[in-house]
Amino acid sequence: MLILGGAGFIGSNLVKALCVSNDKVKVLNLGPNPLPHHPSLEYIEGSFLDSQILEKALDGVSTVYHLISTTNPSSSNLDPVADIETNLIGLIGLLDLMVRKKIYKIVFISSGGTVYGEPLYVPIDTHHPLKPICSYGVVKVAMENYLYMYSHLYGIKPTIFRVANPYGPGQLPMKGQGVIADFTYKIKTNKTINVWGDGSSIRDYIYIDDLVSLCVKAGIVDIVGTFNVGSGSGTSLMQIISSIESISGLKACVNYMDARKFDVKSVVLDISETKALFSWSTNYDLFKGLKKYYDEIKDEDIIEG
Amino acid sequence: MLILGGAGFIGSNLVKALCVSNDKVKVLNLGPNPLPHHPSLEYIEGSFLDSQILEKALDGVSTVYHLISTTNPSSSNLDPVADIETNLIGLIGLLDLMVRKKIYKIVFISSGGTVYGEPLYVPIDTHHPLKPICSYGVVKVAMENYLYMYSHLYGIKPTIFRVANPYGPGQLPMKGQGVIADFTYKIKTNKTINVWGDGSSIRDYIYIDDLVSLCVKAGIVDIVGTFNVGSGSGTSLMQIISSIESISGLKACVNYMDARKFDVKSVVLDISETKALFSWSTNYDLFKGLKKYYDEIKDEDIIEG
Repeated sequence: MLILGGAGFIGSNLVKALCVSNDKVKVLNLGPNPLPHHPSLEYIEGSFLDSQILEKALDGVSTVYHLISTTNPSSSNLDPVADIETNLIGLIGLLDLMVRKKIYKIVFISSGGTVYGEPLYVPIDTHHPLKPICSYGVVKVAMENYLYMYSHLYGIKPTIFRVANPYGPGQLPMKGQGVIADFTYKIKTNKTINVWGDGSSIRDYIYIDDLVSLCVKAGIVDIVGTFNVGSGSGTSLMQIISSIESISGLKACVNYMDARKFDVKSVVLDISETKALFSWSTNYDLFKGLKKYYDEIKDEDIIEG
Repeated sequence: MLILGGAGFIGSNLVKALCVSNDKVKVLNLGPNPLPHHPSLEYIEGSFLDSQILEKALDGVSTVYHLISTTNPSSSNLDPVADIETNLIGLIGLLDLMVRKKIYKIVFISSGGTVYGEPLYVPIDTHHPLKPICSYGVVKVAMENYLYMYSHLYGIKPTIFRVANPYGPGQLPMKGQGVIADFTYKIKTNKTINVWGDGSSIRDYIYIDDLVSLCVKAGIVDIVGTFNVGSGSGTSLMQIISSIESISGLKACVNYMDARKFDVKSVVLDISETKALFSWSTNYDLFKGLKKYYDEIKDEDIIEG
């Protein structure tokens, strides 16, 4: 199997789990290898937009995990053209190569937080209309649609996970990867937390180990379709802050700012179909996950961040 | 107002209608001006992908009609990257310029025949899931989503028409623009008609004058939203052939070929909301429209085609 973006937050955790039970795990990622050495692991440094490197990376592969995103919801709106050129056109290049090399299975990480837009109801099931209000979400929807088009025309077998807000070790603060990393770091170092809006904004947070266990299953079974991945329950920003305060025994300093136009008020995903079809469930509620994250992050991570 | 693609099939008919009641109609289109001279008409030759030309074309404009597509459903799958680079990235360029120049109103022609994919039910309303199976449809969905994102973030006011299969004068055969032009031309010149599939494939055909009357209304009223535009009833390919035979008194020669994978079996649009909101209705049933088209097309058109 090949993990595109295997050195990122989700990727590095997934690669660790896959190396346990697989003889050969290939990782394609920008920059030198930050992953721990493992006999199963082959690391390829380069861009997945470089078709020669990607073609070589796909040699001997039967399953592709596509975890790369060059943007996040906030940055995507600043330059939608770059978002399209890298993420969307990048996917077409990948799919064309997969078809040519007769590789059909792909696990793709889509976005549970942005593809639905402002929810008409919660929890959101996968039949909810797709009304993204940021480029990140528009492009994820288009990527999903191309995966199904290539499925229909050329037999690609996509498993699409619309993932809510994952958090946990490996998610470094200051990279815009998530509020839990950011809040934890800032509370631990006594820095001011900036909150967009009044703190009532609700999201569905999933501990990285729970997401990884599902991704590992998806590589083993052949289930084509689109699935929500979250905890199934919602938490406000204020609840997160008070939980970290309670775990750390420290007091947060919070600065409330104007809400951003592309942030929706509440996202909670209906994960019942995912649980049933993959015989999967989450092991971490938010407090347990936050505690594990808090205990595991090291001071080096904070300095790196 | 500015009509992007004003010299095309829909565009040339729309421009004629707009010139009747407007002082100034600007047209941006590739190639030299094929439109009849009119004192209200300003013709600009060039590509809408050229931002300098587009910026100049937008001067003094309050409403944009965006009718340009560089692909059709069949050609789009041969090169999805070109489809994305021209149509999708082209739209972002247009929207960014509109925002900068404080132009908010845009009438956009989307695709009633491809955005829904294989219908779950007919007639299809605008709440039907969007499951396109050709790049043309995937890109149209992404374009719609960007229009709404720019509406949400920057106040763009889009009227989106998911148009079924328009036909009528100005639609030249041999350009892949539609089966009615193709069939009429071939029956008239005693050439063999190639039909993909068994001829039972059903589409919703709308006479160009009916589409144009709606587009003219959309320029006058401010109605933001997505609307189906068709006749509201379905016709098979075989029914079209026998209607043209009956109108012309000629016999068709038909060659049935394997169905194409990206063609869906049946598309009939629910247009009730469009009729109610725009106080609009169609004046042509298929037989009346086919007859008018047959009578109006000239031998030159067929030779040009």
